[in-house]
Amino acid sequence: MAFLSNNPQLSQNGELQHLLTIEGLNAGMLRHILDTAESFVGVSERDVKKVPLLRGKAIFNLFFEPSTRTRTTFEIAAKRLSADVFNLNISASSQSKGETVLDTVDNLAAMQADMFIVRHAQSGAAHFIARHVAPHIHVINAGDGRHAHPTQGLLDMYTIRHYKKEFHNLRVAIVGDVLHSRVARSQIHALTTLGVPEVRVIAPKTLLPAQVERMGVQVYHDMKQGLKDVDVVIMLRLQNERMRGALLPSAQEYFKSYGLTQEKLALAKPDAIVMHPGPMNRGVEIDSNVADGKQSVILPQVTFGIAVRMAVMSILAGN
Amino acid sequence: MAFLSNNPQLSQNGELQHLLTIEGLNAGMLRHILDTAESFVGVSERDVKKVPLLRGKAIFNLFFEPSTRTRTTFEIAAKRLSADVFNLNISASSQSKGETVLDTVDNLAAMQADMFIVRHAQSGAAHFIARHVAPHIHVINAGDGRHAHPTQGLLDMYTIRHYKKEFHNLRVAIVGDVLHSRVARSQIHALTTLGVPEVRVIAPKTLLPAQVERMGVQVYHDMKQGLKDVDVVIMLRLQNERMRGALLPSAQEYFKSYGLTQEKLALAKPDAIVMHPGPMNRGVEIDSNVADGKQSVILPQVTFGIAVRMAVMSILAGN
Amino acid sequence: MAFLSNNPQLSQNGELQHLLTIEGLNAGMLRHILDTAESFVGVSERDVKKVPLLRGKAIFNLFFEPSTRTRTTFEIAAKRLSADVFNLNISASSQSKGETVLDTVDNLAAMQADMFIVRHAQSGAAHFIARHVAPHIHVINAGDGRHAHPTQGLLDMYTIRHYKKEFHNLRVAIVGDVLHSRVARSQIHALTTLGVPEVRVIAPKTLLPAQVERMGVQVYHDMKQGLKDVDVVIMLRLQNERMRGALLPSAQEYFKSYGLTQEKLALAKPDAIVMHPGPMNRGVEIDSNVADGKQSVILPQVTFGIAVRMAVMSILAGN
Repeated sequence: MAFLSNNPQLSQNGELQHLLTIEGLNAGMLRHILDTAESFVGVSERDVKKVPLLRGKAIFNLFFEPSTRTRTTFEIAAKRLSADVFNLNISASSQSKGETVLDTVDNLAAMQADMFIVRHAQSGAAHFIARHVAPHIHVINAGDGRHAHPTQGLLDMYTIRHYKKEFHNLRVAIVGDVLHSRVARSQIHALTTLGVPEVRVIAPKTLLPAQVERMGVQVYHDMKQGLKDVDVVIMLRLQNERMRGALLPSAQEYFKSYGLTQEKLALAKPDAIVMHPGPMNRGVEIDSNVADGKQSVILPQVTFGIAVRMAVMSILAGN
Repeated sequence: MAFLSNNPQLSQNGELQHLLTIEGLNAGMLRHILDTAESFVGVSERDVKKVPLLRGKAIFNLFFEPSTRTRTTFEIAAKRLSADVFNLNISASSQSKGETVLDTVDNLAAMQADMFIVRHAQSGAAHFIARHVAPHIHVINAGDGRHAHPTQGLLDMYTIRHYKKEFHNLRVAIVGDVLHSRVARSQIHALTTLGVPEVRVIAPKTLLPAQVERMGVQVYHDMKQGLKDVDVVIMLRLQNERMRGALLPSAQEYFKSYGLTQEKLALAKPDAIVMHPGPMNRGVEIDSNVADGKQSVILPQVTFGIAVRMAVMSILAGN
Repeated sequence: MAFLSNNPQLSQNGELQHLLTIEGLNAGMLRHILDTAESFVGVSERDVKKVPLLRGKAIFNLFFEPSTRTRTTFEIAAKRLSADVFNLNISASSQSKGETVLDTVDNLAAMQADMFIVRHAQSGAAHFIARHVAPHIHVINAGDGRHAHPTQGLLDMYTIRHYKKEFHNLRVAIVGDVLHSRVARSQIHALTTLGVPEVRVIAPKTLLPAQVERMGVQVYHDMKQGLKDVDVVIMLRLQNERMRGALLPSAQEYFKSYGLTQEKLALAKPDAIVMHPGPMNRGVEIDSNVADGKQSVILPQVTFGIAVRMAVMSILAGN
């Protein structure tokens, strides 16, 4: 297991110590997380939506970049596990008061933190913190720069498994701004690890990373070709700043070429599901008819996301 | 009961599904809320200020317009009922990221929200959300534009009943900026529904809605005439922007004509009570002597407000 | 005990009613707080970091000046005592809406608050509030202007006692911006009250209050002389605004003269401990080697700070 020790999120005996990225997690580990999440889906449907698993634990939402939505999902998951949650929005301005990120983390650790949920605009921030903290403290990456957003990737896998049962017979298309997406990378790794034989990315050249084929995906620039006979369509959010930038002609042009409409979706398998990590830009990357249509599983993704975050927290706290 | 189904806050069998406005609630419903609140007043006086009625419920303070005070009263009420509370301040700037209000609401609903406390600068926002959500989710309007702020109206009724026992023999004066008040409208509806025979509004013409008489009130422009022999004086907050606007000559002038002083209050009945929804502009709409005087029940209003909000939440969650 | 009644933080029978400043607390009272804190250190090390002592109590973090770090320490302490915590950041802008500080406090008191943790930029704000509230409500000063920050002073005493066991045989040096520090004043009072025979302050003249000698300290302007044979070195934070101001030539110059390096620390006793209230300016008042070195007890200070705040809250709530 020597090779595992190079991965900061796994302990020396291969247990999940932090969740930083889906890269490096094997299929068994991914399945264990999904199975654990399955047991938590029911908790949120109960009258009393709580289990005492993390009672008295101190979980810190350490957000160096604001994200009300992501922060809320982790806060809900933690409170359903009965943990105490502390929200810290650490803006660039407060950081300019001179304290380093590691001093902030050390101080919170000295207050007997059990877990940090880290969101940061810079890639690698959660890794940096994870490498620094004492072994009894767990770090979850809630999005770092363009790099990773592993709980989003995991909830996507949960959703696919929920609707499609198996991975080994699927054709999955990821459509849109793969280049700037912290989600796409996580998804591609998870899909290939779980045995999906055909992962496609559909995007204009300007929104694809260099040598994306090396990640084991097939590249399409034409949506009609790319969506042909797929089982799962994963739409990516097009960030506003891209629309205003030089990479794209206009939101209207983008929608025409890469926005998901009922007409384009008809090229996929009849029972194909449509996913989106949210928040959606209706009329830019996805048509409202599709977003609210019967193939859309966008809201179930959100529901499963709570269960997946509860699963990750409880697995980490148990290790 | 067919006529009730036109009111989005009542279920088909006439039960309270949402609390959006006092309009449309009959006297029986209002009394039921006040009676329930009475049973909660004691909880806040206990050593352990909590009952487990809403344990494990997820209540979201969905504030599209900031209001620390209002948010705090709902947060206190929810925590005293043992619910889990999530505070979301959704500024105009975050909404500009492209997600619609309904997408935000759908996402939170998918996280298994049980209740939304909605504050929004636009009239009708809470109605809009209530019409959209699934039947098991309850919406409380915590203030929408100039329209309604029903829990404030209810706590005012609770306060009046607490001090005056009955409604059918009362003369009540509402003084000040009726035009821009989200509270005055709720109060007038509640008072007339509960059988108050004489409701007066006292204000300059510029601060009265057109055809206010149609709401069943008597209009006075002179405070000394209007306060004569009343049992209850409800002062309204004069918002700063009005003072700076063209509607009023100056804060000093306003105080002289419509500010409540001991001298003017002496024209009311000797046991008249003085109410104010807060926050007060001392020296503008109310003199400090009166605000802190022995006829003032302004702070008891705040205390009863917690009990009333607990009552509304527990009634909604029980339906 | 008549003299005690002049101190707003002590009740007529000499019990702690509020914690506003260390001034006026006798050695017995200080030792009682430290002893109580000792019993709470263990709580934070447990698997379930909670005791039910303040269950159902409503504790308000009333921050008129933002301080994420200080707010968090009180929030953690309160939640470990099972209290309900409400965070209110009351910016200058919201205060400009016309409500006075005392009206805000009265309103929260009417919501059955049990305790206010007050942070304010103006000296005396917490005293002002404490003098105003009803006897069953307790106020803790979490920093007021340059004046006091008593829980910081208490956690420093706890830390010194933890490592040095006794106070009566110690030489303690406080180094840096004594003039603008809300902490230094609290520390000097506590140290002299607990019987430390020799308290030194080391600073340039521009960063010392007039007639600081009257507080019972020895003044040094040269760090090498001042640190000679001390048991405890307390470094103060140099605030950025001082560095940019006219009081100091430059951060580099300051570090050369008053920054703590290994070389200067070698002049203290070999087992001297190094303390800092945080957040640190590494390379300005303290060298990273020292901050992270084996004589540093800066992170244990943070840990003890939670226990001290739990102790103060539980003592106040019990009185």
